[in-house]
Amino acid sequence: MLVTEPALRAFTKNIFLSIGCSEEHANLATDVLIKADMRGIDSHGVARLIGYVRLWEKGRINARPNIKIVHETPTTATIDGDAGLGLVTAPFAMQIAIQKAEQFGSGWVAVRNSNHFGIAGYHALMAAEKDMIGYAVTNASPLVAPTFSNERMLGTNPICYAIPAGKYPPVVIDMATSAAANGKLEIAQRLGKQVPEGWIQDAGGNFATDPHALKAGGSLLPLGSDREHGSHKGFGLSAMVDIFSGVLSGANYGPWVPPFVSFLEPSANPVGAGIGHFVGAMRVDGFRPVEDFKGHMDNWIERFKSASTIDPSQKVIIPGEPELEAEIDRKQNGIPLIDAVVNDLNGLAEKFQIQKLSC
Amino acid sequence: MLVTEPALRAFTKNIFLSIGCSEEHANLATDVLIKADMRGIDSHGVARLIGYVRLWEKGRINARPNIKIVHETPTTATIDGDAGLGLVTAPFAMQIAIQKAEQFGSGWVAVRNSNHFGIAGYHALMAAEKDMIGYAVTNASPLVAPTFSNERMLGTNPICYAIPAGKYPPVVIDMATSAAANGKLEIAQRLGKQVPEGWIQDAGGNFATDPHALKAGGSLLPLGSDREHGSHKGFGLSAMVDIFSGVLSGANYGPWVPPFVSFLEPSANPVGAGIGHFVGAMRVDGFRPVEDFKGHMDNWIERFKSASTIDPSQKVIIPGEPELEAEIDRKQNGIPLIDAVVNDLNGLAEKFQIQKLSC
Repeated sequence: MLVTEPALRAFTKNIFLSIGCSEEHANLATDVLIKADMRGIDSHGVARLIGYVRLWEKGRINARPNIKIVHETPTTATIDGDAGLGLVTAPFAMQIAIQKAEQFGSGWVAVRNSNHFGIAGYHALMAAEKDMIGYAVTNASPLVAPTFSNERMLGTNPICYAIPAGKYPPVVIDMATSAAANGKLEIAQRLGKQVPEGWIQDAGGNFATDPHALKAGGSLLPLGSDREHGSHKGFGLSAMVDIFSGVLSGANYGPWVPPFVSFLEPSANPVGAGIGHFVGAMRVDGFRPVEDFKGHMDNWIERFKSASTIDPSQKVIIPGEPELEAEIDRKQNGIPLIDAVVNDLNGLAEKFQIQKLSC
Repeated sequence: MLVTEPALRAFTKNIFLSIGCSEEHANLATDVLIKADMRGIDSHGVARLIGYVRLWEKGRINARPNIKIVHETPTTATIDGDAGLGLVTAPFAMQIAIQKAEQFGSGWVAVRNSNHFGIAGYHALMAAEKDMIGYAVTNASPLVAPTFSNERMLGTNPICYAIPAGKYPPVVIDMATSAAANGKLEIAQRLGKQVPEGWIQDAGGNFATDPHALKAGGSLLPLGSDREHGSHKGFGLSAMVDIFSGVLSGANYGPWVPPFVSFLEPSANPVGAGIGHFVGAMRVDGFRPVEDFKGHMDNWIERFKSASTIDPSQKVIIPGEPELEAEIDRKQNGIPLIDAVVNDLNGLAEKFQIQKLSC
């Protein structure tokens, strides 16, 4: 099914309003979610809407959070998200980071007591739009095993940097710190396809190519896949994300991070509150004049785009380019939704007695 | 040859004094270099001393730099290193970042017109010692090809985070953003050993296992090794390091970064000054009380160390542990130097008519 952006937006907002979000929060959460669908990151868009609703039904998401700053210096802060949607708490945190950066050059905000925040790129791009470098990371449901381990200790813990350019769109590095994002596993599971060696291991710690191995006690592997190819680096990056998001903020960390799926209960002995995020903004003109920087960013982009390639038909891809291409395409041609997602969404429409999805 | 730390320190300082460094700069450069040897990162210690001397002989390193701040906000700054040793400019930059963090919560400093800065861990640890999270990155001689490319466009561009803990030593994530650090290639070249597939590619873009393929027009691969295993993520991280270090500071970036080896000339048309670094510090108590944070860091470390492992004899390694073990061992037992390095060092002693290395 192909849905237009305005139609999907209206539908999604209605769902958020139905669970009790304020008009402002419903608009914001919708904006974050739809941005994922527009940018082609389908695993993090409306496909997750039913997941948020289920967590709300379980009382694990508070639709009317009282988000507040609990600790602060001129350029740092910690926020308690009051169990609200990460789709709302993370932009709130980034807004504060941006304000601090406007005043002092940079701003860094840790968030605790939150939930899944959608795509990291949304939050980091808020800063890039203001000629700042944006940074956003979050911890997540434990699925990834550290090097040498077969225990799920970390989420796919994404890292995002958004860096403004001049005539080109921002460079957006938005990546899971695992070898493969969980969304790719889910696609393989749905299609009954094998996955490459190096994405997951089975319970015994052997590379597995059956994507269902993950559900049978297996785990995702860190970026690098094995020790010889640098999985300790992927583990290190994921550890940093976990510590910034969880330990610095006072959220849960490591295996204590509450699972996104509602059928798994959070730990009975949490070490913190909810899941955590960490966002930041640095003013480009805190380092050099914006026009100088942007001119050199354009030069950087042009030079990398023209690097010699192995296959002449496959150019070097600048981080963020594929997402932007998807955004342009989907704005014009609509957003393709698979049947399973359409069914989930229309199930929600029925539950809340709102209008079903229309093209 | 086994050399004691004080002996290696005295020797190294003499070399830096011989090229004209001030007493203060010679002490600092020595401290950074010896820290690498102590921590077992042999590729970045005194093995590089001859390389610095050769660059100084070529006039590419200024032993008497006038390092100055050229741009500043309360929490950001850009420094011109005046072609000085990165071993001196980077600690200078980190000192400023720490001062800014003391006053405003965080501090971020970009450095241009610099040279190789040794191990990133040294600089990041300066912050960790003050109960701050330290960050240090640098760009470097182009050796790494972006995903889909066979052109050397990026250095091994390391990322380092140093995070203080309580009863445990700091967590130090100090990693090249390539699948393998260049030092590992050099070891394989010296020993005539093959390297695993996924570390390097030949000029045609095929995986190579002969470490000499690098010298025959090949290139190092980004962390992830190939597209299927996430090399675009390694490329993205390396791009971030290059942009922070080069574009933000006004240094060179990408293929324009001057090579560390003196027999390769820097670009005749540079896009900036020298190589670049980027360092930062965030006060832990900018987010939560230090004791809370450290208690949870200890818990984080204990939980990860006790994660279930595939091979019961191989525990999960906390980032920074192996380097600390080396430091303890070498403080007690001395630093092992291979003959090639000893010969290089004694050649320098002869050149400058100073005392040769003694055990």
